[in-house]
Amino acid sequence: MLPFVEASIPTTDQPRIVILGAGFAGMRLATRLKRSPYQVVLIDKNNFHQFQPLFYQVATAGLTPSSISFPIRKAFHGHNNLHFRMADIERINLDEKRVHTSIGSVRYDHLVIATGADTNYFGNRSIEHHAYPMKSVQEALLLRNHMLQCFEHALISDDPSEIDALMNVVIVGGGPTGTEVAGALAEMKRYVLPGDYPELDFDRMQIALLEGTPRLLNGMSEASGEKAKRFLASLGVKVSSHTVVSAYDGRIAETKEGERYPTRTLIWAAGIKGNPVKGILEQLIAPNGRISVDPFNRVKGLDAVFAIGDIALMEGEGHERGHPQVAQVAIQQADRLVENLKGDQPGKAWKPLKYKDLGSMATVGRNKAVVDLPWFHFKGFFAWVFWLFVHLMAILGVKNKLMIYLEWMWNYITFDQSLRLVIKQKPDNQGDRASD
Amino acid sequence: MLPFVEASIPTTDQPRIVILGAGFAGMRLATRLKRSPYQVVLIDKNNFHQFQPLFYQVATAGLTPSSISFPIRKAFHGHNNLHFRMADIERINLDEKRVHTSIGSVRYDHLVIATGADTNYFGNRSIEHHAYPMKSVQEALLLRNHMLQCFEHALISDDPSEIDALMNVVIVGGGPTGTEVAGALAEMKRYVLPGDYPELDFDRMQIALLEGTPRLLNGMSEASGEKAKRFLASLGVKVSSHTVVSAYDGRIAETKEGERYPTRTLIWAAGIKGNPVKGILEQLIAPNGRISVDPFNRVKGLDAVFAIGDIALMEGEGHERGHPQVAQVAIQQADRLVENLKGDQPGKAWKPLKYKDLGSMATVGRNKAVVDLPWFHFKGFFAWVFWLFVHLMAILGVKNKLMIYLEWMWNYITFDQSLRLVIKQKPDNQGDRASD
Repeated sequence: MLPFVEASIPTTDQPRIVILGAGFAGMRLATRLKRSPYQVVLIDKNNFHQFQPLFYQVATAGLTPSSISFPIRKAFHGHNNLHFRMADIERINLDEKRVHTSIGSVRYDHLVIATGADTNYFGNRSIEHHAYPMKSVQEALLLRNHMLQCFEHALISDDPSEIDALMNVVIVGGGPTGTEVAGALAEMKRYVLPGDYPELDFDRMQIALLEGTPRLLNGMSEASGEKAKRFLASLGVKVSSHTVVSAYDGRIAETKEGERYPTRTLIWAAGIKGNPVKGILEQLIAPNGRISVDPFNRVKGLDAVFAIGDIALMEGEGHERGHPQVAQVAIQQADRLVENLKGDQPGKAWKPLKYKDLGSMATVGRNKAVVDLPWFHFKGFFAWVFWLFVHLMAILGVKNKLMIYLEWMWNYITFDQSLRLVIKQKPDNQGDRASD
Repeated sequence: MLPFVEASIPTTDQPRIVILGAGFAGMRLATRLKRSPYQVVLIDKNNFHQFQPLFYQVATAGLTPSSISFPIRKAFHGHNNLHFRMADIERINLDEKRVHTSIGSVRYDHLVIATGADTNYFGNRSIEHHAYPMKSVQEALLLRNHMLQCFEHALISDDPSEIDALMNVVIVGGGPTGTEVAGALAEMKRYVLPGDYPELDFDRMQIALLEGTPRLLNGMSEASGEKAKRFLASLGVKVSSHTVVSAYDGRIAETKEGERYPTRTLIWAAGIKGNPVKGILEQLIAPNGRISVDPFNRVKGLDAVFAIGDIALMEGEGHERGHPQVAQVAIQQADRLVENLKGDQPGKAWKPLKYKDLGSMATVGRNKAVVDLPWFHFKGFFAWVFWLFVHLMAILGVKNKLMIYLEWMWNYITFDQSLRLVIKQKPDNQGDRASD
C-alpha cells in the first residue's frame, strides 16, 4: 500500500457518509441528511453548486454566471454534521474504504458517487479539441466570450468567407440543450446583435441545428419535438435531422452526409457520458461511463458504495437503458437513498426506487416553449410561463430566484440581453488556479 | 517606414477623432460627441466599460462583475458617427498621424489619449509578482477567487502558522480603495465567513491596513481620515500609518520599519501610474507615467493630440502636481474638450479647463462612510446613504443601477454577501483568449 496523507476532517463516532459531487443528486442527499445520525462529508472540485438547465442562458448573455451558481458552504450553514471540502477526486480504494483526493485521503463508511456526466465526443479528438461544450458555468462563459470575439473579428475582416465563418454558429445535438441554445441565439441575432454591430449584415449569419436522429427532443413527445422544430424555423434556424457531424477542424464542420458548414463556433450538445471515478471495477462501467447499480442505487456487488444521478445506470423497470439523465431522476434517487439510509437497521428491508416521471419541457424563445406533463401536453405562451415558473422554483436560494426573475423580466420587456461582456481572467501569480 | 495593414473602419469626409480607452474620460468624450461633425473611433482592449469605484465590492463578493461592467457597444446604439473597436494599442506614429493597434493601423485627425492608470509598484518586482492589485474587474475577481481558496486551504492545513498566513490579509495603501476594501473584509470576517467556515477560528484572522504617510484618505479632510481610521478600528482592522511595505515574497510582508506580517494575501493599493502609449516623446512623460498637457488638455508641443483623465498631467492652477486621478476630473476634462472641439473654428479661442472640485467620499462599512463636500463634511449613516446614492447615479445603465441597488439592499438586510464563488476560467481551445 502506498503511504497517504489523511485529509483534515473532524472525527466523530457517527458513521461517515462521503458524497462525491455537489450536483442535483449530491446536494439533495447532503441537504436531506441534516440531523441524521451520520457524519456527512461532501466533496466537489468547485465551491458552488451549478444549475445546469440554465447554462445556455449564460452562454447567450442572458444570465450572469453567479445567478445560476450557489455557494455550497452557504447552503449548509447550521448543518453541524456536514463538512464540505473543495477537492479533486483521484481514486477510490474499495479495500481500505478510502477516497484519495487532491487534499488527502478520506475514510468512509458509506460512499455515494454523484459525479454526474460530462460531454461525450464519442472518441472524436478533433471535435473535442475545437468544439465548444456547455457542461459547466465555465464552459458557458467561454462560449459567450468566444462568440462575442468572433463578431469583433468579423468587423475587422475583409474576407467574406471568413466573415461568414465568424458569424455562423452550428449546434450539434437536438436535445433540450441544443434546442434551447439555438433558440436563444436566433433571438440574439434578431433583437440584440444588429444594434451592437450596425456594420455587420446579420442576414448573412446562419444558425444551424444538426441532429443525428429523425427528430428533435427525443426525450419528449413527437408533437413537442415537431412544434420545437417549427418554433426554431420561425426564428430562422436551419434545423436538419438525420445529420451527423463527423469532423470539425475549427473552421469547417463536415457531416457524414457530405455537407460542409463553415463556422468558427461549433457548439457540441450531442451527448454526455458519465464521469466515473477510478477504482470502480471496469466491468461495472457501461460504455457511456455510467456505473451499474441495483434498484437501491448500490453499485453492483458492493455493500457500502452507491451511485446516484447521471452517473448511475439502473436498468429494468421500463428503463432498459437506464433512467434519463435529468435532475428529476437525481433528486428522486437521492430521496430514496436518504430514506433507506435513515431507516437502515438489521432486519428492515430497503425499498427500491420507484421513479415517477413528472414530465419534461424545453423553451425555444419568447413565448415559445413545449411542455409534456404525464397527462397533458401544451405549448406556446402558457408553456413558456410554466417553464419560467418551474425553473425559478427549482433554483437554489431566494436571492438567485429574485435576480433571475428580474433578469428575465428585464430581458423580456427590453428585448435585450445585457451581459455581452468578454471578461477574460488573468492567471493567478500564486499559481493556485487549479487546472479544472 | 514599415508596411502596415489599415484597420477596417468606414471612411467618411468627417474629420476623425480617435479615442484610446473607454474609462470615465473616453466614454464621456465619445458619448458627448454624438451628432457632432466628427467621426469618432473608440478603441479599448475590453468590450466593456468598468466602474472602477466598486472594484473592491467585486473582490469582497458583494457585487457580480457584470453589474459594474457595461457593454460599450450597447452604450452607443444609434451613434451613427461612432465606431468601436476592441484592440490593444501598440504605438502612436505622430508623423503619420496613425495609431498602430493589434487590429491594424488607424489614421486620425485628432487623437485623444485616455488610457488611464494602472497599479504602481514603484519598481519592486517581487511585490509586483506576489501582490494582488485591484485595477480591473479581472483583478478584482482574481483576488476574490484567491481569498476564498485561502480559506479552503486553511481548513485542510495542520500547521498553525500556515493557517494564520492563509487567513490574514494585509492591505497596503490607505487611500479610498485600501480603506474601502479593508472595511469590506472586516465585515466579511464578522458576518459572513464564520458561517461558511465553522471549523476555522476567525478570531485568529488579522486584517492590517498599512499606510506610508501619517494618515488615511490623504485626498480628503483630516477629520474624515481620522474618522475612517476609527471606523476601521471599531471593525477590528489594525491600521498602521508611517508604515511602508518594502518586501513581499508571497508569504511574509516586511516593512521598512522592521515589522513582519505573515500573509498569503497582500492587496496592493499603494499607488497608481499612468498607462502611457509608445510614441509620445519621453520628456513629456512624468516619472509617474502621466503625460504633460496644457490647460486645453493638448499634449505639450502637439497640435492634434490630447490626453484626458488619469493619464493627463495638467500642472498649475492650484494643482502643482496635477489634478487628483479621479472620475470627476476625467469627466470635466472630457466635457471641456468636447466643447472646445465642437466650437473649433478659425479665430475662436479655446477655453482652458476650470476644474471644480465637487467633493469626495469613502465608505468603510454598514452605515459608516465619510463625505467631504466643498462647504460641508459629514459622516456615519447619512454619509453612507449619500455614498450609495451618488455611486448608484454614477453607474452606467438603468439595469445596472437596479441590480446593484437590489444587491446592496439584500446584503444590507441579510448581512450576507452571496457571491462567494471561485469561478475559474478554462483556457480557450481556439486560442483567442488574449493575454491582457
